[in-house]
Amino acid sequence: MADENVVFVGKKNIMSYVLAVVTQFNSGVKEVTIKARGKVISRAVDVAEIVRNRFVNDAKVKDVRIMTEELTSEDGSKSKVSAIEIVLGRE
Amino acid sequence: MADENVVFVGKKNIMSYVLAVVTQFNSGVKEVTIKARGKVISRAVDVAEIVRNRFVNDAKVKDVRIMTEELTSEDGSKSKVSAIEIVLGRE
Repeated sequence: MADENVVFVGKKNIMSYVLAVVTQFNSGVKEVTIKARGKVISRAVDVAEIVRNRFVNDAKVKDVRIMTEELTSEDGSKSKVSAIEIVLGRE
Repeated sequence: MADENVVFVGKKNIMSYVLAVVTQFNSGVKEVTIKARGKVISRAVDVAEIVRNRFVNDAKVKDVRIMTEELTSEDGSKSKVSAIEIVLGRE
């Protein structure tokens, strides 16, 4: 169930992720988690800030977590990548 | 005084920022704040994770703050940019 309130940010147009988050809030959920890995971490922050400042003014940053994830590529080699989870919530 | 414990991440080699943070901890401070703006936000997360996982194992992420800053360019035009502050602390 928690997964329903997650938006995973990648390389698409940033407004498509903003729209995804806003749509979730408009459907009535109280919290949306924005996740990203690697270089697109900065875009996750952009998404959270745009949602908060322009679309869902009562949304607050409830928590920001940073972590390291291990990825296994097709050839079996492993690499580590930083990740972020930003929890936006409204009262 | 607080400024002494801040490392501002930019486009230099990532290990130079890691070294800056580790040096601060080794000088005896209990907290170091890692800051970045825009696309290098992901590098700030990398710096925090590398410090924590490889160099200062008792360092914990005390706080992560995200925000929007307004920049004024030379021609006077203003633009907004996302920013992050990661506070690492050891007991």
